[in-house]
Amino acid sequence: MKAAIYRGTEDIVIQDVPMPEAPAGGMLVKVHGCAVCGSDVRTYFFGNSMITPPWIIGHETAGEIIENNSGNGMQVGQRITVGTAIPCGHCRQCYLGHYTMCENMTAHGFEFPGGYAEYMAIEPYAIQQGVLNCIPEHVNSDEACLTEPLACVLNGQEILNVGLGDRVLVIGTGAIGCMHIQVAHARGAAMVLALELDDRRLAVAKEFADHIANPAKEDPKEFVDRWTKDLGGVNVVIVACGVAKAQMLALELASPRGRICNFGGLPKTDPMSTINANLIHYKELSIFGSFSSNPRQNQQALSLIASGAVNVKPLISKSLPLDLLESAILEMKRGESMKIVIHP
Amino acid sequence: MKAAIYRGTEDIVIQDVPMPEAPAGGMLVKVHGCAVCGSDVRTYFFGNSMITPPWIIGHETAGEIIENNSGNGMQVGQRITVGTAIPCGHCRQCYLGHYTMCENMTAHGFEFPGGYAEYMAIEPYAIQQGVLNCIPEHVNSDEACLTEPLACVLNGQEILNVGLGDRVLVIGTGAIGCMHIQVAHARGAAMVLALELDDRRLAVAKEFADHIANPAKEDPKEFVDRWTKDLGGVNVVIVACGVAKAQMLALELASPRGRICNFGGLPKTDPMSTINANLIHYKELSIFGSFSSNPRQNQQALSLIASGAVNVKPLISKSLPLDLLESAILEMKRGESMKIVIHP
Amino acid sequence: MKAAIYRGTEDIVIQDVPMPEAPAGGMLVKVHGCAVCGSDVRTYFFGNSMITPPWIIGHETAGEIIENNSGNGMQVGQRITVGTAIPCGHCRQCYLGHYTMCENMTAHGFEFPGGYAEYMAIEPYAIQQGVLNCIPEHVNSDEACLTEPLACVLNGQEILNVGLGDRVLVIGTGAIGCMHIQVAHARGAAMVLALELDDRRLAVAKEFADHIANPAKEDPKEFVDRWTKDLGGVNVVIVACGVAKAQMLALELASPRGRICNFGGLPKTDPMSTINANLIHYKELSIFGSFSSNPRQNQQALSLIASGAVNVKPLISKSLPLDLLESAILEMKRGESMKIVIHP
Amino acid sequence: MKAAIYRGTEDIVIQDVPMPEAPAGGMLVKVHGCAVCGSDVRTYFFGNSMITPPWIIGHETAGEIIENNSGNGMQVGQRITVGTAIPCGHCRQCYLGHYTMCENMTAHGFEFPGGYAEYMAIEPYAIQQGVLNCIPEHVNSDEACLTEPLACVLNGQEILNVGLGDRVLVIGTGAIGCMHIQVAHARGAAMVLALELDDRRLAVAKEFADHIANPAKEDPKEFVDRWTKDLGGVNVVIVACGVAKAQMLALELASPRGRICNFGGLPKTDPMSTINANLIHYKELSIFGSFSSNPRQNQQALSLIASGAVNVKPLISKSLPLDLLESAILEMKRGESMKIVIHP
Ligand SMILES: NC(=O)c1ccc[n+]([C@@H]2O[C@H](COP(=O)([O-])OP(=O)(O)OC[C@H]3O[C@@H](n4cnc5c(N)ncnc54)[C@H](OP(=O)(O)O)[C@@H]3O)[C@@H](O)[C@H]2O)c1
Ligand SMILES: NC(=O)c1ccc[n+]([C@@H]2O[C@H](COP(=O)([O-])OP(=O)(O)OC[C@H]3O[C@@H](n4cnc5c(N)ncnc54)[C@H](OP(=O)(O)O)[C@@H]3O)[C@@H](O)[C@H]2O)c1
Ligand SMILES: NC(=O)c1ccc[n+]([C@@H]2O[C@H](COP(=O)([O-])OP(=O)(O)OC[C@H]3O[C@@H](n4cnc5c(N)ncnc54)[C@H](OP(=O)(O)O)[C@@H]3O)[C@@H](O)[C@H]2O)c1
Ligand SMILES: NC(=O)c1ccc[n+]([C@@H]2O[C@H](COP(=O)([O-])OP(=O)(O)OC[C@H]3O[C@@H](n4cnc5c(N)ncnc54)[C@H](OP(=O)(O)O)[C@@H]3O)[C@@H](O)[C@H]2O)c1
Ligand SMILES: [Zn+2]
Ligand SMILES: [Zn+2]
Ligand SMILES: [Zn+2]
Ligand SMILES: [Zn+2]
Repeated sequence: MKAAIYRGTEDIVIQDVPMPEAPAGGMLVKVHGCAVCGSDVRTYFFGNSMITPPWIIGHETAGEIIENNSGNGMQVGQRITVGTAIPCGHCRQCYLGHYTMCENMTAHGFEFPGGYAEYMAIEPYAIQQGVLNCIPEHVNSDEACLTEPLACVLNGQEILNVGLGDRVLVIGTGAIGCMHIQVAHARGAAMVLALELDDRRLAVAKEFADHIANPAKEDPKEFVDRWTKDLGGVNVVIVACGVAKAQMLALELASPRGRICNFGGLPKTDPMSTINANLIHYKELSIFGSFSSNPRQNQQALSLIASGAVNVKPLISKSLPLDLLESAILEMKRGESMKIVIHP
Repeated sequence: MKAAIYRGTEDIVIQDVPMPEAPAGGMLVKVHGCAVCGSDVRTYFFGNSMITPPWIIGHETAGEIIENNSGNGMQVGQRITVGTAIPCGHCRQCYLGHYTMCENMTAHGFEFPGGYAEYMAIEPYAIQQGVLNCIPEHVNSDEACLTEPLACVLNGQEILNVGLGDRVLVIGTGAIGCMHIQVAHARGAAMVLALELDDRRLAVAKEFADHIANPAKEDPKEFVDRWTKDLGGVNVVIVACGVAKAQMLALELASPRGRICNFGGLPKTDPMSTINANLIHYKELSIFGSFSSNPRQNQQALSLIASGAVNVKPLISKSLPLDLLESAILEMKRGESMKIVIHP
Repeated sequence: MKAAIYRGTEDIVIQDVPMPEAPAGGMLVKVHGCAVCGSDVRTYFFGNSMITPPWIIGHETAGEIIENNSGNGMQVGQRITVGTAIPCGHCRQCYLGHYTMCENMTAHGFEFPGGYAEYMAIEPYAIQQGVLNCIPEHVNSDEACLTEPLACVLNGQEILNVGLGDRVLVIGTGAIGCMHIQVAHARGAAMVLALELDDRRLAVAKEFADHIANPAKEDPKEFVDRWTKDLGGVNVVIVACGVAKAQMLALELASPRGRICNFGGLPKTDPMSTINANLIHYKELSIFGSFSSNPRQNQQALSLIASGAVNVKPLISKSLPLDLLESAILEMKRGESMKIVIHP
Repeated sequence: MKAAIYRGTEDIVIQDVPMPEAPAGGMLVKVHGCAVCGSDVRTYFFGNSMITPPWIIGHETAGEIIENNSGNGMQVGQRITVGTAIPCGHCRQCYLGHYTMCENMTAHGFEFPGGYAEYMAIEPYAIQQGVLNCIPEHVNSDEACLTEPLACVLNGQEILNVGLGDRVLVIGTGAIGCMHIQVAHARGAAMVLALELDDRRLAVAKEFADHIANPAKEDPKEFVDRWTKDLGGVNVVIVACGVAKAQMLALELASPRGRICNFGGLPKTDPMSTINANLIHYKELSIFGSFSSNPRQNQQALSLIASGAVNVKPLISKSLPLDLLESAILEMKRGESMKIVIHP
């Protein structure tokens, strides 16, 4: 079969590799699509400690069952999403419900091969841990590829406990930010504002947010005050970009007792963030990290796409064949596309 | 009566001022003691936006009722603690239970005169809002002065939700750190570790903590690992000093999903803290600010002192007469004393 | 002015009484409407320990400011809702955030006169505690009368912590049940089912719920299974009627770890409920009582009506003049109307 | 080896059965002790739907490793506790953190053979799921047998969220109630009261509780008021007996917003409990079921025994040889002993 082999930083080749076999108790899946994630871009440029090249990466995958030896009841031909993170369910962190911090974590695209290939073998362990979800008929495979990033968004908002009446500010409206806006509404936020530097993305966010602004053109503090002063300010801020300045801005804009999510990682090469710590102290702010998602959140993410509560269609800029994976990565890097789905 | 008048930065005079009268519906209290707080030291050197000199400051006060016009049932001669922060109980933040962030906050030593004086008039409003607590007979007035800082500690640990089985690290063992250690035990922490640079204070902390270390002499990471590796690391870190480096250390030492409290403010002149934000993101840490306390926490603090659950005696370095307030502030500044109680 | 005077059980007269005056620091309000509450019906038939006749009752009130001595900035002519419960904000329960259990609770229609009269005097205390809310222009006064019961619904769902993905069953779809359905959706419930004995009310609920059934005609267990078996059953059940059998049914229908709200009180004359306690124990269910609401919830309720998140119009069966208050109560009692608004 | 075979209600025989073998990847354990649980008594008299006779029951087990094929690092000769409930870690309930409600639950003494036998084979699955814990040297095996019931107690108090300052009432001071008292203290309760009908058990409880009373001799309401009126009443009530009347009493004694745990199941033959439901509604009480425990709680339970935070020694009435299992069950039934440990 054809597969994209990640051989190291800035080095991906499309190659013919032996077709994987359905493991005893496992499955063989034909990949319909695998969306390019920001972390793929980072891995491409900087490597990833959890990936040893050569390797098939890609972890936002939807496909179709070709062979099923697992006895889990799913039919050949059934379309499914393949979850990324596979927590063990019985380590210290799992027993605390902290599945994303599993001490025995494995993942598709990391320890197990990923989705930038024509076929994927699914191990019985992954099936047992519940990372596969059936795609309803009315959801197309491209949309289904966004299940995993949406699950991460759900993880972030669970940690933040976004709820009825919250005034939420999302900083950065890439695909992730646009999903955050929608999930905040689904959880009952009274108002969702968005800040974004790129006017094309701002135009997309406008569909979802109550009010939007470009912080390069309009003072963010005035923007936030205009819409939320009477409501007590923004009490939730989600930093949906990997930018230290935005993390600092979040502290300034949050109301007293505001909750902030550092949803994006900073560049590995410069992870330092300089913040006014007294804003945390005197306003009793809380800052939460959020990383990855668990199988339950993947299931819920697909349900939200299916019910229409989250509309991911406008976030998919295009689809490209496997051969163009590298240029898709570069395009993502340049911020030209929000989400690109690779069709192997 | 004699009172210490704060006239501006580095300027306090002891003066005779007119004796205050018990307001209609209020009280007159003879001050037994008022402990020097780190924020008094900051106000002395840098001023405080909420204090307009000349003013009687001091807010960790215990005294005795001389006259009571409030009809609240407390007897003349009763010893009481006078709470600092007086939340309104009906603003947006109060109705959310965020009493420390009250939009109409007033406080003794700020809008109302403080405890560095022979007598204090207590307004009916303060009485109504429940900031006075009766001191049990077996608790002396000096100990009772620590009710307010202990209440702040309780506020921090409520926000952190310290509980059964937590492994807690306290960085900085001044009076505040030593109270944090004890409260963590009272809330069921399985282990409490402490780091402190000053060996004299470390010796005091040794009475309370399970294990202690001086980070100048021993690698903090090794220290923490030695005692908690088998238990999953420290999942709670309390930064009980106003030092940016300690805030950064907290991120490094906390286990995945660890909860961190920035309990101390950084110096007004340099409130910037440079942190590795990726530790928050990838370890899904949470950081909580904590500032001040509410009347309920003051009541609970005094109960914990009374029950012996928190022993504040070893934290009181000495008591000094009102005339020596300025030198007490300087002594605190130099870190020579943990807590000094002023006896006006 | 004309007022309805409750003189004791089954005895209300419409009388001319002296016009109240705007208190110093208070307000005079012309009542536009006051909705009849189930508790008015109970008071009419059985009395209420907190009401000493003769008294003006009625507590779901909207009106217009005629005179304002409070300096709170509201204009004469401004339409407002008058909150019922007035918590003190500083007792033990208030400082725990349990405002509905305030130890010094007072309320309009109880300690203060209610809304079944042409005019109401508003005390400065009520204004200070924040129980008045401005009605936006596009919300009519009849709708605004439902602010208070909707606030109670919000209180119930806050206690239940209804959230994203919950499968909620509402038993009883009077005005209260219909608001519960809508609030559950606003908080992100994945599915909301409703059971109701009266087919006319079921027809109203159909507008709001995902699926409905009449338990007299269809087995409730089969109904719930049909729609939620694949989703893990109903994990939230709200008993929105004062019927012991429905409380027992809730225990049977809730999934393991399900959360149940006893939203309705049982008749004073027979408050006993016989339940299979082992369902609670073995399924680790939780049951929550919910009673009344706080000023913050009243403010949020009016916002939800204003934003359209909750549509109360279909719940208002009719409006009647003050003279017909007694017949309105009887009509409510017979279950013929959902909500009747009295126009004094 | 010698084993007790449960053949049906009121029918246990001590028999020689084939020695079990250590499974591939599993272990063979020599049983040191297995404590008799109230549910063993119920199974003896009424059967248990999850147990198909003939079967070796018993699930509060401590023993010693004889053979270890698992590679988990535990040494032959190591003493361990064998957890009862084995959750799967990946079903819907597990992924919500509701491990006690696992949809694929298995357990020692139920699906897997129990501890009333000289030896137990431990399946690799049980080992992987983390149900074995090493017993520290200074803890004897009899004490270690109480790990599992103590874990259940921890589960109950986690669900109740017992914490600093709570006033806790425990109804029933068998072994379970006495552990509840101690755990409430460990979690920071300000006061723990206990009610018990049997004066011998009351004498044991006196060691642990702040105040005790026999409700047959003293009015429970007066008792509770005497000690907690000034503190706001008891805000947590744990019903540590399987008695409907005690469940009703809990509702009466709990303060407004009180939290109640139905820790004991009622007799299968009469599980109905008649309660005044209006107490729940008007006092906004919450009632929580609690059933069984998870592996994390088992680990924590053994730690609490080891640290001395919970002293189980006074709760062990005696130990008896396997031959006397049936008479031990009868003795438990008659309430003559608190805990009996069987030594096979
Ligand atoms: N927590 C998790 O589990 C998880 C999962 C997936 C993704 N992520 C992270 O989430 C973040 C967003 O992902 P994405 O795919 O949506 O990324 P993206 O396409 O790069 O979107 C981020 C957007 O933020 C904008 N932005 C940057 N700085 C800003 C500022 N100061 N103010 C306002 N807008 C600003 C960017 O504009 P410009 O392009 O003009 O700079 C960009 O449009 C990334 O950091 C990613 O690593 C986290
Ligand atoms: N949140 C609130 O409501 C609240 C209330 C009261 C106080 N506070 C704050 O709590 C903090 C502690 O109060 P305190 O009265 O106990 O102050 P303190 O007497 O200054 O004690 C802080 C201690 O931390 C030590 N320390 C400094 N840097 C350290 C490091 N990197 N590692 C280990 N130890 C370090 C200091 O040692 P050296 O003296 O050798 O530097 C000092 O002994 C202050 O920042 C205060 O402003 C907050
Ligand atoms: N917690 C609070 O703060 C608060 C505030 C306001 C109201 N409430 C309470 O909330 C409840 C509902 O109020 P409401 O004004 O909507 O009352 P309602 O008009 O009496 O509505 C209750 C509905 O439930 C139906 N019902 C009764 N038993 C049922 C059963 N076994 N299965 C299904 N449906 C059943 C009734 O049908 P039939 O008429 O045919 O019997 C009725 O239509 C009342 O108990 C009220 O006291 C509580
Ligand atoms: N949730 C779980 O996971 C779990 C785990 C283990 C056990 N349990 C349950 O926990 C309960 C206690 O277990 P145990 O082993 O301690 O049982 P136990 O030995 O039967 O103790 C219960 C005690 O409660 C007393 N009592 C009964 N009614 C009372 C009343 N109205 N007021 C005060 N005291 C009363 C009993 O006295 P008399 O003997 O004089 O009646 C008895 O001494 C049992 O119901 C058991 O099934 C639950
Ligand atoms: Zn794990
Ligand atoms: Zn306030
Ligand atoms: Zn109150
Ligand atoms: Zn499970």
